[in-house]
Amino acid sequence: MKESEQQHIAIIGAGLVGSMLALLLAGRGHTVDVFERRPSPRHAPPTNGRSTHLVISERGWKALDAIGARDEVLRATLPLRGRQIHLSDGSEIHQPYVEDGRCINAIHRDTLNRILLDRCMKSQRVSLHFTHRCTSVDPRTGVIELEDGAGQRSAVRADRIFAADGARSAIRTQLLRRERIDYSQSYERFGYKELTIPATHTLDMVVDAMHAWPRGRISLFAFPNADRSFTATLLAPFDGEHGFDALHTAEQVERVFLANFADVDPEPLVEGVLGNPVSSLVSIRCSPWVFDRRVALIGDAAHAMLPFLGQGMIAGFEDCMTIDGLLDCHDDDFDAVFMQYERLRRPHSDAVTTLSSRGFVELTERIGSPRFHVQKALERKIHRLYPQRFVPPYELVAFAQVPYAEVLAKIDELEALVAKIMQIPDIEKIWDTLTVERQIQALVDGAEGSAPVVAGW
Amino acid sequence: MKESEQQHIAIIGAGLVGSMLALLLAGRGHTVDVFERRPSPRHAPPTNGRSTHLVISERGWKALDAIGARDEVLRATLPLRGRQIHLSDGSEIHQPYVEDGRCINAIHRDTLNRILLDRCMKSQRVSLHFTHRCTSVDPRTGVIELEDGAGQRSAVRADRIFAADGARSAIRTQLLRRERIDYSQSYERFGYKELTIPATHTLDMVVDAMHAWPRGRISLFAFPNADRSFTATLLAPFDGEHGFDALHTAEQVERVFLANFADVDPEPLVEGVLGNPVSSLVSIRCSPWVFDRRVALIGDAAHAMLPFLGQGMIAGFEDCMTIDGLLDCHDDDFDAVFMQYERLRRPHSDAVTTLSSRGFVELTERIGSPRFHVQKALERKIHRLYPQRFVPPYELVAFAQVPYAEVLAKIDELEALVAKIMQIPDIEKIWDTLTVERQIQALVDGAEGSAPVVAGW
Repeated sequence: MKESEQQHIAIIGAGLVGSMLALLLAGRGHTVDVFERRPSPRHAPPTNGRSTHLVISERGWKALDAIGARDEVLRATLPLRGRQIHLSDGSEIHQPYVEDGRCINAIHRDTLNRILLDRCMKSQRVSLHFTHRCTSVDPRTGVIELEDGAGQRSAVRADRIFAADGARSAIRTQLLRRERIDYSQSYERFGYKELTIPATHTLDMVVDAMHAWPRGRISLFAFPNADRSFTATLLAPFDGEHGFDALHTAEQVERVFLANFADVDPEPLVEGVLGNPVSSLVSIRCSPWVFDRRVALIGDAAHAMLPFLGQGMIAGFEDCMTIDGLLDCHDDDFDAVFMQYERLRRPHSDAVTTLSSRGFVELTERIGSPRFHVQKALERKIHRLYPQRFVPPYELVAFAQVPYAEVLAKIDELEALVAKIMQIPDIEKIWDTLTVERQIQALVDGAEGSAPVVAGW
Repeated sequence: MKESEQQHIAIIGAGLVGSMLALLLAGRGHTVDVFERRPSPRHAPPTNGRSTHLVISERGWKALDAIGARDEVLRATLPLRGRQIHLSDGSEIHQPYVEDGRCINAIHRDTLNRILLDRCMKSQRVSLHFTHRCTSVDPRTGVIELEDGAGQRSAVRADRIFAADGARSAIRTQLLRRERIDYSQSYERFGYKELTIPATHTLDMVVDAMHAWPRGRISLFAFPNADRSFTATLLAPFDGEHGFDALHTAEQVERVFLANFADVDPEPLVEGVLGNPVSSLVSIRCSPWVFDRRVALIGDAAHAMLPFLGQGMIAGFEDCMTIDGLLDCHDDDFDAVFMQYERLRRPHSDAVTTLSSRGFVELTERIGSPRFHVQKALERKIHRLYPQRFVPPYELVAFAQVPYAEVLAKIDELEALVAKIMQIPDIEKIWDTLTVERQIQALVDGAEGSAPVVAGW
């Protein structure tokens, strides 16, 4: 990079995506200022109550490799080898994520954020400014107005500005008032509360798995922590008979657990269920992401998805990698990069947002239906018959690097095939017969114009 | 209505929908305060530059009948009997809206608004408060905070609050920050400027028609005024070669007119084309419309659509009529009404928003295609063959009272039929033959499961 191309970059938001981007850009020789509304995590209490457990899968490691942080992060994670499904009758099923034993890795949001911020602090080219709230950005001039914790106002100018300030991005909200932005936000009628199952109550729980009590309208999930406690997510409608609004007493909470999660002792969870805030679930899409080739939205500020596929942070990391890759292609000419960024990236963030929503519909509406389980069994059967061509959805999402838009297309192809098979009379009874197998083969091998096999997976 | 059921209603916005609703509710015996950000139109300059000409069609008259204003409004309108299409070669075609000679009526937004506001002023039960900006509403308490022109703040409490403050509703924006609202806004890459063609330049123009120079990317429309001037709308992309951004000099404007609207003298329009603001075109959908059974969005605040179908105000009037009808059904129990309002009304506002967007795509993308004109000719042919069952889209929209969702379903049915016919080889050449007519009849009369004929039209 020529010295003339070295840019002064401002990043609004020192979360996971903001700090990842800061490290990538600093690594290229740019000067980066990161402004964060909250105080430094060194002086702040740990985040609690929402989305504190994260999983890192294949795509996430790629970004962590790019900043040389894989080993340090890996040491702070716990491996998850599959799902431990707790059935209504109290029995359990273990579903490995993939048949070859590979795992994904769980980590606390704060832990990962601290590792990234420590690296930012060590970088000569990154300056972190905590307790600095950005009150406005001007895409025409690059001027950023700030307010610190004491109410002191200041302004700085940057060559380029990235808004990495999350799903409720203040920068995006401010731009929405002034620019012609296509925007949509869509809420689920479900919310969730994060709870802690103390280590004393997890002795019967395997630690190398995500635990799930999927009951449709009301469900429970739990991820292990290093101290053998589990961080649990209780999902329920906001209101109505089965909603959070109907839970007012310890007795009501105990009744819900007995009816739905009989193998979980509710005693240490009651206080959290009654007292913790309910977080909402929102999907957000917007366009454009880039304003005057000077301001760009990135991560959740550009696209917020439901958390249950575990791809929110990772999709944000991929945004950063797209920027980094474009800077490679265009010799750090940000004008060229900003003209390409959304066009290249949005098909994939749209696709993973769609996949995250579909997964949620399965979880809350379809999981109780016997036909749904036949469909899932057919997916696995088709994968065994055509292991290269038809890959189970989660494997494509978490254990592959295939761009999300291709993942979505592959899943659509698989689901269209399953939908055809489901039309066979009495399919619920005969799905595991040779007759059905032959029909699958006839449909696949006889199909014209189907997608070609993608090399490599 | 029992006296105990008389409510104190606040309406935010004294535009067309706000004043219509005030009159309907006052007519039922409720006390209505209307708060309007702008000064009284008696003291304000006329609105200019955006969407100043309106058309009133069948559905609009129904609402005006309900407040007994048809005759007064009718006297202030000009009848439009059809479209006067100016072709590229300078020739003109007259398309009557309907074959029986019925018309729609053009009126200036300010004229209609003044008629409604004068009626509000005469009503004992309506109080108009101009230069009162609403800064917040609280759905829990019904408290409305206001700021007058001198910066004086005040607060009032109302039993029910209607936000009739338009597409850029400040109330909706404020609620969006605090409530879980599904929301989408979608901008067109086209904008428009309103221009005035002075009476001295309209001698060759018939006055009982809407004039159109549809050229796809850049188009011109004009509506007559009582003084024989015309209010024109110039539609063009914001930027690019054919965009407003490329128009800087009188010479450039003249060149655009010569190339596209050769029969229009650009001379009196140049100043407006260069100086008037460009208005954007946005579609907005949101849900819910009702908060705590106390605050309801209505009109453009609840659903904003593209203006070219002429249904924005009318859809807002229909919202008012839905409220009025529900009050009839529920003996003015607003709790019951607010529980039903969105469920009953939103399918129809969604449908007309969709129809308005589709019409815009036709106008800007498809109107230049020969296949499109064959499709339109086939629609008319099918209507002649089945005059009751298949009705041309605009006739359903403007000359019927059929709910918009049914209109959309009927139009979908017609378009699906036309799409099938369009697959006939060489259809562009043979569309007007007996062969094609027989195929239409085979498709229609042989079709199974098609929609039943709706009685009455």
